[in-house]
Amino acid sequence: MHPDLETIETPAAVVELDRMEANLRRVAEYCRTHGLAWRPHVKTHKSPWLAAAQIRAGAVGVTVATPREAEVMAESVEEMLLAYPPVGATKLARLMALPAGVRLTVGLDSRAALEGLSAAAREAGRTVGVVVEIDVGMGRVGVQTPDDAVALAREAAEATAAEYRGIMFYPGHIRSHVDAQGGEIRAVNDRLGPVLEALGSAGLAPDIVSGGSTPTLWRSHEFEGLTEVRPGTNIFNDRTTAEVGACGSDECAYTVLATVVSTSVPGQAVVDAGSKALAKEELRAAGGGYGVVAGRPEVAVKAVSEEHGILDLSATEWRPEVGSRVRIVPNHVCVSVNLQEWVHGVRDGRLVESWEVIARGRSSPAAG
Amino acid sequence: MHPDLETIETPAAVVELDRMEANLRRVAEYCRTHGLAWRPHVKTHKSPWLAAAQIRAGAVGVTVATPREAEVMAESVEEMLLAYPPVGATKLARLMALPAGVRLTVGLDSRAALEGLSAAAREAGRTVGVVVEIDVGMGRVGVQTPDDAVALAREAAEATAAEYRGIMFYPGHIRSHVDAQGGEIRAVNDRLGPVLEALGSAGLAPDIVSGGSTPTLWRSHEFEGLTEVRPGTNIFNDRTTAEVGACGSDECAYTVLATVVSTSVPGQAVVDAGSKALAKEELRAAGGGYGVVAGRPEVAVKAVSEEHGILDLSATEWRPEVGSRVRIVPNHVCVSVNLQEWVHGVRDGRLVESWEVIARGRSSPAAG
Repeated sequence: MHPDLETIETPAAVVELDRMEANLRRVAEYCRTHGLAWRPHVKTHKSPWLAAAQIRAGAVGVTVATPREAEVMAESVEEMLLAYPPVGATKLARLMALPAGVRLTVGLDSRAALEGLSAAAREAGRTVGVVVEIDVGMGRVGVQTPDDAVALAREAAEATAAEYRGIMFYPGHIRSHVDAQGGEIRAVNDRLGPVLEALGSAGLAPDIVSGGSTPTLWRSHEFEGLTEVRPGTNIFNDRTTAEVGACGSDECAYTVLATVVSTSVPGQAVVDAGSKALAKEELRAAGGGYGVVAGRPEVAVKAVSEEHGILDLSATEWRPEVGSRVRIVPNHVCVSVNLQEWVHGVRDGRLVESWEVIARGRSSPAAG
Repeated sequence: MHPDLETIETPAAVVELDRMEANLRRVAEYCRTHGLAWRPHVKTHKSPWLAAAQIRAGAVGVTVATPREAEVMAESVEEMLLAYPPVGATKLARLMALPAGVRLTVGLDSRAALEGLSAAAREAGRTVGVVVEIDVGMGRVGVQTPDDAVALAREAAEATAAEYRGIMFYPGHIRSHVDAQGGEIRAVNDRLGPVLEALGSAGLAPDIVSGGSTPTLWRSHEFEGLTEVRPGTNIFNDRTTAEVGACGSDECAYTVLATVVSTSVPGQAVVDAGSKALAKEELRAAGGGYGVVAGRPEVAVKAVSEEHGILDLSATEWRPEVGSRVRIVPNHVCVSVNLQEWVHGVRDGRLVESWEVIARGRSSPAAG
């Protein structure tokens, strides 16, 4: 390990910049090839600098989930989709206070959310784009039927201070890139098709059909009528993404650098990255646990407490000592990044730059 | 819901101050009754103001896990146990830079950690207390045998700039207050007893025997030789603590206030508190899921995404509307608090005060 990585205090988030940039080039190229717009979700990195890097690499704008993310990204991005219904007075007020140059589109699935948004936009003297969220099988949010989609789209088209722009969906139930070769994408299309047809018949054909996820990313062109993708995780990738076949392990750009703090219990080593650095989201496959040591696929983090990660050494002869450093690929990178104040960018083992995870949290930037 | 709680932006952490204060009084009284010192772990609240409230209520000092926690707490507390081996130059440097008035004791389980600490303390001109961590069955950290305990205690007693003070343990494997009536505490004592005997025979009888957890809190006096307890969760409690029988549901002081943002999918309602507000730590009992609606024990958070929590309405006739607000008791309060920038204290439904979760993260206070 290079001296730079021997002196950063652990646990610390480290990004291989070469890998990250290759990930951006790859998705940009895929989208160019298939005529799709790329609107990355910034929830993964929460950094205006990385959003700017995505725009430079070809993104048409960004996707955000919270007012905080919108406010921070507005400093460097004008084209923005809030893929989350803004419900409540202060959230609406914060969105309406975004710089006038921001072209904001909002995804929602209810009349109540639309009415609140329309009223707030009217009062603010803004026009806000609207896309209707469709449930394509995940069962989380989204209107359930073509008729409901048409009804909400019509209300959006008629609402004051709103501009109906199309639909969005999130196929978050498809957790395997490989199985998606089978019926899962067809099942989504069985839901999407009738919605698109009904909207077309009603004179509400969508300009935007926004969908996709990181697990399904490279098969996004198979979704019917799709015009844009919103991958988040893809900039860094993670153990789950590799496990579902949507990236190689050499495309995982993000790791948590950790220090071994105890080897007292036989068969394991304890590091200082636990659930407050990796998050405790278990992978119920591929050896289980909460992460894996980079370069040692046989060594999983078998358990985590808040400040302890327990490396399972039962399948390796390797015996790290107290003070040794390891890099851990977390199961779910988005929640790990959200636990960091800073991320360190490295190239060839050298620390090149560090950036704050500035769009974390809930406060407005002024208050935060 | 009082207007104050209708206007806070969600998701928001809310603490019932009356309940919190009752929780502090209860543990203080328990410790007085049994002649135990109370050294609460601040990892749960990460607030110097709440640490000060614990001291006022009778705590002898605090327990911390990270340099950040130590630095923040040093502003208001002088007696401190770092229940975590500080491995690495910057962590040691930060600890040695604590105000001279701070009486620091460190728990560790290896010669390597002891030697690093001793060298740093000698160089800084400080004396640091040492307690040897014993594994009493959790299998996470801690020396394994009485002989190892004696060997490390002797090294601590002989190390320059260190003062051997005793032992610590964490019975984190005991997850049930009720079952602990059975053999679990006896099994711990079967490990503790020989360690205490060996240390006594070696002329290294401990002044401090530090142990306990929130699940075992009210039975701490049954641990052999115990002199102090270090509960963290107990200040707020959570769904898991109630589930294991170590608190009543009316002793859960902390909730996440959330807003319903979608009711499109039948049988559920979606709120804006997901894994970035509640954390995604599943409770594998009592209805499962990731939290429960306060006052509605039949409504669990059955799934979470980063910004979505899905309320399972299958066992209730209650049908909240978009815009409705609910309060959710998370499974594990420590990791939920760690996701918040602010916590709001309420009394009788009114917002009384808000405090920053200032000891979150890793940076030194100056940098953070």
